[in-house]
Amino acid sequence: MEKEVSFQKVRYDEKRQRILESAGKLFAKKGYEKASLEEIAAKLKLKKGTLYYYIKSKEDMLFQIQMQSLEKVNHLVDEIVKTDMSASEKLVEVIKATVKNSTRAYVIGCINQQEFVFPEKMKKQIIAERRRYHDAFLGIIQQGVKEGVFEEDNWKMRAFGALGAMNWVTRWYSSRGELSPEEIGSAMADFVLKGFGKLYQK
Amino acid sequence: MEKEVSFQKVRYDEKRQRILESAGKLFAKKGYEKASLEEIAAKLKLKKGTLYYYIKSKEDMLFQIQMQSLEKVNHLVDEIVKTDMSASEKLVEVIKATVKNSTRAYVIGCINQQEFVFPEKMKKQIIAERRRYHDAFLGIIQQGVKEGVFEEDNWKMRAFGALGAMNWVTRWYSSRGELSPEEIGSAMADFVLKGFGKLYQK
Repeated sequence: MEKEVSFQKVRYDEKRQRILESAGKLFAKKGYEKASLEEIAAKLKLKKGTLYYYIKSKEDMLFQIQMQSLEKVNHLVDEIVKTDMSASEKLVEVIKATVKNSTRAYVIGCINQQEFVFPEKMKKQIIAERRRYHDAFLGIIQQGVKEGVFEEDNWKMRAFGALGAMNWVTRWYSSRGELSPEEIGSAMADFVLKGFGKLYQK
Repeated sequence: MEKEVSFQKVRYDEKRQRILESAGKLFAKKGYEKASLEEIAAKLKLKKGTLYYYIKSKEDMLFQIQMQSLEKVNHLVDEIVKTDMSASEKLVEVIKATVKNSTRAYVIGCINQQEFVFPEKMKKQIIAERRRYHDAFLGIIQQGVKEGVFEEDNWKMRAFGALGAMNWVTRWYSSRGELSPEEIGSAMADFVLKGFGKLYQK
């Protein structure tokens, strides 16, 4: 009996995930505002009523996708921060992981959506996850400043510049483009490292 | 008679501009999705019906503000490109002008709003203005590559990184922050110039 229940749970979760991924791709294509639940249901050959068995609203889908993506990238960043790599190495790995995470087909149309759209409780959770990322990122920059490889002058502005260079990728990335997310991540990491004045050390 | 008509026109335009600026500030505070025409009218002590004498819809306001901001920055960029400054000097000026333009109180909440929200005709105009900016920006980078001061390797990725560092400012800028838009522009310009490998030349 127990087993059957958990099998149902797995099936439920898989289906829910499939719905989220389909919705996320539609958000990327049409924009969050213009995509409708009817269209998401139609794409999955489901009745709109069935959709509500898995998700509460369009907002809820956007929220779930953003949280999945933020939790995943924060987990990856935690793993990177824990290592004994240098700040430069950590920065390269974090940028590569972030670009790869945020360019995934069902994530890319959701990740830049601002938090205004959410009710207070969801907004707080999103902001807390973003804050975690942000603090870890700034921690790596501070490590680099301490190691003497990143310029101290205006280090916070440089950190924001780096976040921008990286986060902006989702605004221009195309899966049909010449470069893979990995190659884009490497190129951005190189740009950012130079921006931190790493060249002074060579 | 002629004079009176044009006086009315000036008054109309001024009032329309005041409405746009008030709406833009509300978009920045609450997010475009959550701000309503009722609220915009109430802030201006106008009836909602009166608002329609000046603007067609919420969408129309967002469009007008984006276009004003894009046209203004494109005009500034044209002036900078025309000069005989070096690519590095032009890049610094363009970044400073862009940050100053996009952090204006009524612009900042609108500029990052994606074009999905617009009907086809508006979308095309926004994309065309963005394209103009983008092409001018890439032109400066290409000039720098020719001058031998910007690294050729991955120059397009670096250009996108620079656009990201600069465009991301509207996501974290606060008018109550320590640095002015001019100081932020200078810091970003320095970060970006280093990212283009300018240090190799010094």
